[in-house]
Amino acid sequence: MPLAPSDFAHAPDGPAIEAAAALIAPWVRLTPVIAADLGGHPLTLKLECLQVSGTFKARGAFTRLLGAQLAARQAGQPAPERVVAASGGNHGIAVAQAARAVGMVADIFVPRTAPQAKQDRLRALGATVHAQGEEYAQALSASQAFAAQTGALVSHAYDQYETLAGQGTLMREWLQQSPDLDVVLIAVGGGGLIGGIAAWLEAEAQAGQRVPRLVAVESEGCPTLHDALAAGRIVDIAPQGLAADSLGARRVGELMFPIAQRRVAASVCVTDAQIRDAQSLLWSQLRVAAEPGGACALAAITGGAWAPQAGERVGVLVCGANVSLTELAETVAVHATRQR
Amino acid sequence: MPLAPSDFAHAPDGPAIEAAAALIAPWVRLTPVIAADLGGHPLTLKLECLQVSGTFKARGAFTRLLGAQLAARQAGQPAPERVVAASGGNHGIAVAQAARAVGMVADIFVPRTAPQAKQDRLRALGATVHAQGEEYAQALSASQAFAAQTGALVSHAYDQYETLAGQGTLMREWLQQSPDLDVVLIAVGGGGLIGGIAAWLEAEAQAGQRVPRLVAVESEGCPTLHDALAAGRIVDIAPQGLAADSLGARRVGELMFPIAQRRVAASVCVTDAQIRDAQSLLWSQLRVAAEPGGACALAAITGGAWAPQAGERVGVLVCGANVSLTELAETVAVHATRQR
Repeated sequence: MPLAPSDFAHAPDGPAIEAAAALIAPWVRLTPVIAADLGGHPLTLKLECLQVSGTFKARGAFTRLLGAQLAARQAGQPAPERVVAASGGNHGIAVAQAARAVGMVADIFVPRTAPQAKQDRLRALGATVHAQGEEYAQALSASQAFAAQTGALVSHAYDQYETLAGQGTLMREWLQQSPDLDVVLIAVGGGGLIGGIAAWLEAEAQAGQRVPRLVAVESEGCPTLHDALAAGRIVDIAPQGLAADSLGARRVGELMFPIAQRRVAASVCVTDAQIRDAQSLLWSQLRVAAEPGGACALAAITGGAWAPQAGERVGVLVCGANVSLTELAETVAVHATRQR
Repeated sequence: MPLAPSDFAHAPDGPAIEAAAALIAPWVRLTPVIAADLGGHPLTLKLECLQVSGTFKARGAFTRLLGAQLAARQAGQPAPERVVAASGGNHGIAVAQAARAVGMVADIFVPRTAPQAKQDRLRALGATVHAQGEEYAQALSASQAFAAQTGALVSHAYDQYETLAGQGTLMREWLQQSPDLDVVLIAVGGGGLIGGIAAWLEAEAQAGQRVPRLVAVESEGCPTLHDALAAGRIVDIAPQGLAADSLGARRVGELMFPIAQRRVAASVCVTDAQIRDAQSLLWSQLRVAAEPGGACALAAITGGAWAPQAGERVGVLVCGANVSLTELAETVAVHATRQR
């Protein structure tokens, strides 16, 4: 029987993230770190935008698929053949790419509003695309019904044990590369990325290691974590604006919220214009192509929502690059002038 | 008196490259290395396309300018205030950016055919642009006359001791990051890059270190080194085709040719279509934006001009990213389909 998404109703611990890292190592890239002065601050940028599939999502997707294959093998059962995911964007691409790599069939449910280019990319990766409903929540429901009917393995975009464990491998890798960071800035959508990162930082802190402070950055139009932290409980928001496409969940995941309450030191929001400025700066200064969500964490510094203290060693995660070059060219043309 | 380009009529040795590395370290980036399978081969890519100014040229330019400032200081003379360079592209951008960083004034001579966008970029970097002559050789002559008249420091694009020493720092850095490479593929234009790299490899080999074999890659339209190695002497070619803009010197430099004859193990040429394919692949598989010259070395592998042996650890230098996003979008649109 395939693993269900609620196998583990808690966030992963250190050993689970270590295990995920070992499992996915042959399939994902060790993404590089680069030092650069941007917005007047010396920064350490982790270029997760160069990850397989174009975003960090590959880590969680490979962890889910390889984890299920391993569990089946250990139980003497046939390996799962089919995976289903709901996603308007990067998670779907990551699952489709991971499925093709490990020999599984992927069914990806997208809202009917998902751009044709993204649907085409999913098909090019060998996935079957199901366009259902007007928004993510409806595509998710349809995917769950499909999974119940077919017995397909479910890979959740953010609120799943293996997803968090996979994304947690990113922070483990980064601290090996940059052990002296004082603070790290991370973009938030559904919270799978920052949840996994918080889980690794908590494990390290509990093991007596010095760990960087964790700053959550969201676009003003999608403040799922910001509003939840302020309310002290998970709340629903209506995703709006530029980053809604990649960051736009309605609410943060249940597995990550308790750990986020403990480990997120600051939660800040940035405007769409600040995100566009950061995208433009990444291209003009570094020749790094980032999507809006990928530039969101940097926007907190270059836009001023979060000001580093003097001497503070600041890490910024550039988490995704799935932007059309034509769109990025337009962004740079509009925003580069403002930066002269 | 400013340093003249013929101060040292030979290639730099190991200590000179070490000294250059120490001199420029505060001003240039340690560029990252990433592992990726491209064209069916596991490769180690050095992403020098993320270097300050968008190309490796910053290394040579900073070495020349900082070297001249240091020499003046040591001689108790006033620091040079003005630098002149001839370039239709990346060298000019690097000199302009380095001059602004170290407090000098830059005069850049470009052929009148140089794209307006590149001239605008030079002006945005604070340089005075002189559009003279129909091709690079004429802009170079005009720049030399200007230097003789004004006493400005000359920064040569490739055939100068400091230029070679600066580019040599790239190979020193790369071997620290990737000590086990069996072979490295390097794009060639005027030969400053591969000359500096060959100089470092020769120094290491003479010190008893195991060093990778050196493969030179040129576009079919600009085979300056290929034709010179075949003839046993420097020969003139007429630059043509896609990479002429960034790789298109008429002949390789005199300082680098003897060392290239000793250290270049193989010299191969690639077609413009193979370069475009490699640019497209770098974007679609890695989200790395490269200019034609920057993708030239990879094109030798993905296009088949150079076939790695089984088990061989292959390093590929991605040396530049100064491409317009609009142009890159067009390249990807045309060539991605061929790669499905």
